[in-house]
Amino acid sequence: MLICGIDPGIARLGYALLHQDSGRSEVHTFGCLETPVDMPVPQRLLSLHEQLSEVLAAKPQAVAIETLFFNKNVRTAFSVAEARGVVLLSCAERDIPVFEYTPPQVKQAVVGYGRAEKRQVQIMLQRIMKLGDIPRPDDAADALAIAFCHAQVARFKQRLQQGVQ
Amino acid sequence: MLICGIDPGIARLGYALLHQDSGRSEVHTFGCLETPVDMPVPQRLLSLHEQLSEVLAAKPQAVAIETLFFNKNVRTAFSVAEARGVVLLSCAERDIPVFEYTPPQVKQAVVGYGRAEKRQVQIMLQRIMKLGDIPRPDDAADALAIAFCHAQVARFKQRLQQGVQ
Repeated sequence: MLICGIDPGIARLGYALLHQDSGRSEVHTFGCLETPVDMPVPQRLLSLHEQLSEVLAAKPQAVAIETLFFNKNVRTAFSVAEARGVVLLSCAERDIPVFEYTPPQVKQAVVGYGRAEKRQVQIMLQRIMKLGDIPRPDDAADALAIAFCHAQVARFKQRLQQGVQ
Repeated sequence: MLICGIDPGIARLGYALLHQDSGRSEVHTFGCLETPVDMPVPQRLLSLHEQLSEVLAAKPQAVAIETLFFNKNVRTAFSVAEARGVVLLSCAERDIPVFEYTPPQVKQAVVGYGRAEKRQVQIMLQRIMKLGDIPRPDDAADALAIAFCHAQVARFKQRLQQGVQ
């Protein structure tokens, strides 16, 4: 199963593609999509939409994304939400189901503690995925964390179903 | 000049197409795009994107939309922002420039008073556009108001340029 984690943003959108196979998680790729600060917002969203097409061309079976939460900076939160709208549209265009998780759910899945620090999450991701270094930048690491969170939940659900049968 | 005003929303998106010609504003059409409440958000955004295509097929020269402002209901504000992201994308896909106005700017343009009530705005719109009735529903009326606001600003700018030449 190929899972795509996305951390939306207008200037920088983190993404990660994760292979999940019988309990093993393996990184396919991760990184950031960027748009220039001096570009008008509609064109930046168009650029994200086009760049996302390339990421989703890998045909993930699921996209995992964080639930929107209230940010201290309202302007930032709104621009994240606009980018998020384009992400959700891109998924619907390809009929890829979207799963949402809260930040504590993601931290719980990776570190085992819902209030873990960002740094702890990154160190755990490096260990679990057997990466040479800590995943960077932060947006890509966040995308990897949410993809892993969905992989854990999907595996748990699958086990539950197998147990019932 | 054909101007499209948009009042974004996930359940109901108001739109209005306005002809502006040498100081006269004439309504081309206005209404609402709707999506079912029981549909998942990504599919609702896809539906809005498709329905918007039909509206923008009229080839407006400009799209006018309200600046996002902080709403008491954060959840609603986020979902408006997601729909707004899809609107801006739709404009960029067609290379239609987007103009933003604040709610007081829109009220000022229609009523001449930036803190006017919604009802006053609607009554003024009915008079200016010589409509048989008050424009309804509210989202469509809001879209008509913002299209008219842009028409006024565009006319003012044109006059300024003519004065300079």
